[in-house]
Amino acid sequence: MLNAEILSLGNELIEGLRTNTNATWLARELTRLGIRVTRITCVGDEQGEIKAAIGEALARKPNVLIITGGLGATPDDRTREALALAMRRGLILNSVALKLVESSYRRLGPSRSIKREALAQAKQKMARIPKGAIPLPNQVGLAPGIKLRHGKTLIFCLPGVPAEAKAIFRTSVRHNLAELGGQVMCSRTVLVKGIDETTLAPLLERLAHAFPSVDVRSYPSWKGTQSQIKIMLVAPTAEQVKAAAEFFERSLKGSRASTSRRDHR
Amino acid sequence: MLNAEILSLGNELIEGLRTNTNATWLARELTRLGIRVTRITCVGDEQGEIKAAIGEALARKPNVLIITGGLGATPDDRTREALALAMRRGLILNSVALKLVESSYRRLGPSRSIKREALAQAKQKMARIPKGAIPLPNQVGLAPGIKLRHGKTLIFCLPGVPAEAKAIFRTSVRHNLAELGGQVMCSRTVLVKGIDETTLAPLLERLAHAFPSVDVRSYPSWKGTQSQIKIMLVAPTAEQVKAAAEFFERSLKGSRASTSRRDHR
Repeated sequence: MLNAEILSLGNELIEGLRTNTNATWLARELTRLGIRVTRITCVGDEQGEIKAAIGEALARKPNVLIITGGLGATPDDRTREALALAMRRGLILNSVALKLVESSYRRLGPSRSIKREALAQAKQKMARIPKGAIPLPNQVGLAPGIKLRHGKTLIFCLPGVPAEAKAIFRTSVRHNLAELGGQVMCSRTVLVKGIDETTLAPLLERLAHAFPSVDVRSYPSWKGTQSQIKIMLVAPTAEQVKAAAEFFERSLKGSRASTSRRDHR
Repeated sequence: MLNAEILSLGNELIEGLRTNTNATWLARELTRLGIRVTRITCVGDEQGEIKAAIGEALARKPNVLIITGGLGATPDDRTREALALAMRRGLILNSVALKLVESSYRRLGPSRSIKREALAQAKQKMARIPKGAIPLPNQVGLAPGIKLRHGKTLIFCLPGVPAEAKAIFRTSVRHNLAELGGQVMCSRTVLVKGIDETTLAPLLERLAHAFPSVDVRSYPSWKGTQSQIKIMLVAPTAEQVKAAAEFFERSLKGSRASTSRRDHR
């Protein structure tokens, strides 16, 4: 099965000042496209740590690596450089990227508060991308995204600002990933009430044993001393999910449990 | 400076069905205690992947490793086993853990829907922890947390359910971390309006150069074509932060920018 890793960069994330909602959103999108996310990593804005995290991710050879954050024009934006270092490629001024940055500045209005030399410097920074990389238009902010390949890994860099990350993903990433032809999984959720997870555990064990191709998951929650358990069954085909769910529901007959279900995909 | 890693486990996280708020909360707590979080990693419930992620984290020798998720009684709860495998220690039935689990079951009421054999099995599972580990009482749910040491790394395992993770952290983890004596950082946030990040970039470059012990960060956001930038200055002492902030505010004089500020700690 195709797999992906997500690498999120930002001191605000590792200090708990912001929640990594980009990773959640991307993980859901990837899962919908039938690509299994095997790891989400988050490091701060320190050059060496970013380079190490990229190197380690590439060494695991995922089919897809999506990196978010660190694409802006300020000194704490270090993704382009760290990526070039990790891949041992040079950074070059990309003429397409430069045009994208210039058109973004025009779109955001002729901002008279931007000094000419500062503008030139920012453009140079955001348009310098690793050799062989393709810039991706950013219709919301300034910095273009980046697409490049390393061995069998397709790499995408997106800005950390959620609206920008989503916009570039929708315009320039999603169709690339869809073309990879992932294996979209089917799933069913059975909500179980009136029975404890402790009693369910051996039953789930039997279920997992009887249906090795079905991933059996259990998410308990408590309301006072009343437990409610969401059982999620995930498999490549709807038939496998259905068979497992029926086995599960049959096994619960005679107990005090009540169930309700929901199918996905 | 003391550092920590957070490892969050759960298929629901890597599929984007839930946002990893545990990591955000823990990261903020660790930062407040003066412990720098250097990495947050998230993998699914697959045994091999959990073991690999734990092994890699331990190889980086952080002072603290906090693992969340996978401590329950169902088959998809694999943290205890993966931890034992990664540390090459055996799993043993811990008598203190067994007592904790039994008292949790009593507290949650004499649940007549739990079958005797299921109960025995669940207790055995949740009380089997790596050799040398100390169980931590869970006042909200069933599974005890775990504390153990590996070389210079202090490891804590907490349940994935946020209320349980927070309760165990507050009761049994925080004071252990406070004793380590972290370096609590000082910070000041300067909110800048009326100036573009592009113009600010060279100024921030000079600021970072003039104050090498101060971490200079920039968080831009847009309201239509109006940008507003949060500049965060972080350093070991309040004096360093103050000096950098004054330098920064002086540099902005004469520009069209307006600033407002907030001190932390």
